[in-house]
Amino acid sequence: MALIVQKFGGTSVGSVERIKNVASQAIAEHKKGNQVIVTVSAMSGETNRLVALTEGVAGYMQKREYDVVVSAGEQVSIGLLSMAIKSMGTPAKSYLGWQVRFLTDSSFTKARIRNVESERIQKDLDAGHIVVVAGFQGIDSEGNITTLGRGGSDTSAVALAAALKADRCDIFTDVDGVYTTDPRIVSKATRLEQISYDEMLEMASLGSKVLQTRSVELAKKYSVPVRVLSSMEEGGGTLLTKESKEMEHVMVSGLAHNKDEAKITIQGVPDTPGIVATIFGALADANVNVDMILQNVSARGETDVTFTVPSSDYKEAMDVLIGPMNQVKAKSIKGNPDIAKVSAIGVGMRSHSGVAQRMFKALADEGINIQMISTSEIKVSVVIDQKYTELALRVLHDAFELDKDIGDRVYS
Amino acid sequence: MALIVQKFGGTSVGSVERIKNVASQAIAEHKKGNQVIVTVSAMSGETNRLVALTEGVAGYMQKREYDVVVSAGEQVSIGLLSMAIKSMGTPAKSYLGWQVRFLTDSSFTKARIRNVESERIQKDLDAGHIVVVAGFQGIDSEGNITTLGRGGSDTSAVALAAALKADRCDIFTDVDGVYTTDPRIVSKATRLEQISYDEMLEMASLGSKVLQTRSVELAKKYSVPVRVLSSMEEGGGTLLTKESKEMEHVMVSGLAHNKDEAKITIQGVPDTPGIVATIFGALADANVNVDMILQNVSARGETDVTFTVPSSDYKEAMDVLIGPMNQVKAKSIKGNPDIAKVSAIGVGMRSHSGVAQRMFKALADEGINIQMISTSEIKVSVVIDQKYTELALRVLHDAFELDKDIGDRVYS
Repeated sequence: MALIVQKFGGTSVGSVERIKNVASQAIAEHKKGNQVIVTVSAMSGETNRLVALTEGVAGYMQKREYDVVVSAGEQVSIGLLSMAIKSMGTPAKSYLGWQVRFLTDSSFTKARIRNVESERIQKDLDAGHIVVVAGFQGIDSEGNITTLGRGGSDTSAVALAAALKADRCDIFTDVDGVYTTDPRIVSKATRLEQISYDEMLEMASLGSKVLQTRSVELAKKYSVPVRVLSSMEEGGGTLLTKESKEMEHVMVSGLAHNKDEAKITIQGVPDTPGIVATIFGALADANVNVDMILQNVSARGETDVTFTVPSSDYKEAMDVLIGPMNQVKAKSIKGNPDIAKVSAIGVGMRSHSGVAQRMFKALADEGINIQMISTSEIKVSVVIDQKYTELALRVLHDAFELDKDIGDRVYS
Repeated sequence: MALIVQKFGGTSVGSVERIKNVASQAIAEHKKGNQVIVTVSAMSGETNRLVALTEGVAGYMQKREYDVVVSAGEQVSIGLLSMAIKSMGTPAKSYLGWQVRFLTDSSFTKARIRNVESERIQKDLDAGHIVVVAGFQGIDSEGNITTLGRGGSDTSAVALAAALKADRCDIFTDVDGVYTTDPRIVSKATRLEQISYDEMLEMASLGSKVLQTRSVELAKKYSVPVRVLSSMEEGGGTLLTKESKEMEHVMVSGLAHNKDEAKITIQGVPDTPGIVATIFGALADANVNVDMILQNVSARGETDVTFTVPSSDYKEAMDVLIGPMNQVKAKSIKGNPDIAKVSAIGVGMRSHSGVAQRMFKALADEGINIQMISTSEIKVSVVIDQKYTELALRVLHDAFELDKDIGDRVYS
């Protein structure tokens, strides 16, 4: 007998019919002799409806009350799902975040889970119940309702799996697994049978929207085997797991891309200590996250500083920088929102050289200019002109032979 | 400085505009220097929408999960109202039933309040907050969500007022107070300045839908001054209070009517001990509430038993009675769903005779036949043919001179 956590998103519980379908899938797992916990989001559209109401009554964001309102969405879906399961003949019981105590910090709208109580759920599981738990929500130490941020139900599911030492956490989504790259762009993209936590973390933080980054961090921390699979069609999905020896034979597991960044260059910055700190200090004060940073070698006592920021913060960043620019007597500022970041990811890079070179050559062969480069142990990212994004992904997919079986790849 | 509990129903918070209007009313009371607690129901239509969803997914009623789903409605309205109040510049904080611990029994869908914690609310009030509390819901000793039944928000408000020793509990409704009788039927009906708890209890249980009966019981038990008033227009409303000396001068305070009962007569019942117990035992087993009971004097060792049941239970009652009827060898059973109960209510009856006679004469003068009579210390109820309901109310309103000022009534 295994303990399985299943997670279904808003689309999967978006109607009475679909809720019944989720109930069937939970019951099917239960009939195999397994203990089953199901975590669900709000019915699709519901969170947006509630958010719109909050915008209607209030002139500004009120985070504590916002969490009270939006967490009502999951409350409805867990009750309905439990009813559906029970109507089909299997005992079921629903719990809200505060009832099974998803204890979080008090950062309303983006709280982080500190602890999950398992006792009450385990008791129900042992009594033969399917336990249905609201995703996305928790309770702080003062007894206030908190929510975990968009996509937080993934994290709820993984946290439950960790707390109850589940044998597997199945995340049902609208895709049937994690792909070598976005299959809507590269038709040859193939589904990965498995991927390491670290690779998935890079994928998530570099633009893949399959899983919330924090859910992957949590899965890694507690070694929770997570499977990403489709709620609509049968299939083995993709298993997130610790690195295996086998994985190290693969130089590159997948490609990610992100069009939601903008590039800013400050030219003619006097090359004296403390200048760069002034610039980035101003951005930090304005809560603008800086991603890649590149500083040219100094020439004639001057240097250029280039960095990327989220597109949504681009205008604010340009405004915020006027002051410090004058202060440090920089010559000019240039912004470019039409960039894309394309990344190759793979734990195998650690023991293989040549990934970066292969990547640069493939892009150069197509005349795609590389504007910035950033590397880590398991990824190489390049910033290019946004209009080449799709072309770059297709070229790199071929260059790393990602459409071939691992054994058939010849370049490494 | 007084402590005021305000309660607004679903219509009053039915849209973003109306929520802002409620916020203004709460703030107006707060600006007078009072501490203010606001209890609200779900936005109108919301509870019905949620109930429809539960009916869609489940083949039968599942009370625990039903309460989880429907209580989400108030969760949305308290969050929105708090936001609206805060947006208008007054600090506000919302609480769900479980957060301020409306401890109830575990009778899902119709739970009864056992205790309300006041500490947390009092702290917020003392800090200058308007505190917004979800009506209709509580938590049982196991930590499950419970609801108090339709209209339960009235009871929530009165329970809060009792627990916090409020100076007044203002129930805002779509009528501007309690009337001598239904003003849609009797145009001369007048608003009562005040009414005693006992009279209001009779009014509520005899068909007046202004307040949930349990809220009045609770108000009486803890001597909470309750005011019923309109959420749409200014006005003093009606004050529920302990009996005053003045009230005893009034024979009849108001008239109530109820068309939701049916009459059943079992004829030719052998007049031996235990027979009636058999009949009513069968109804009790089927959870059919019996209201008025009338047993004729025995003749030839036989008797007739007549009683009333709620219209909704009428068919079931007739079915259930077949068995015991044969068992006790009764001769026949006759049912009549087309009846109405009309009641005159007043604490003054205790010290005045002649109310019943005046009532019977007024009805007889119009040729309205009385089918059953039941009396208590403060009410006289008669069952009549349903088609005469409105006529009876108008005739009795005149007979007791309810349109006149108390001092001007000459009949007593």
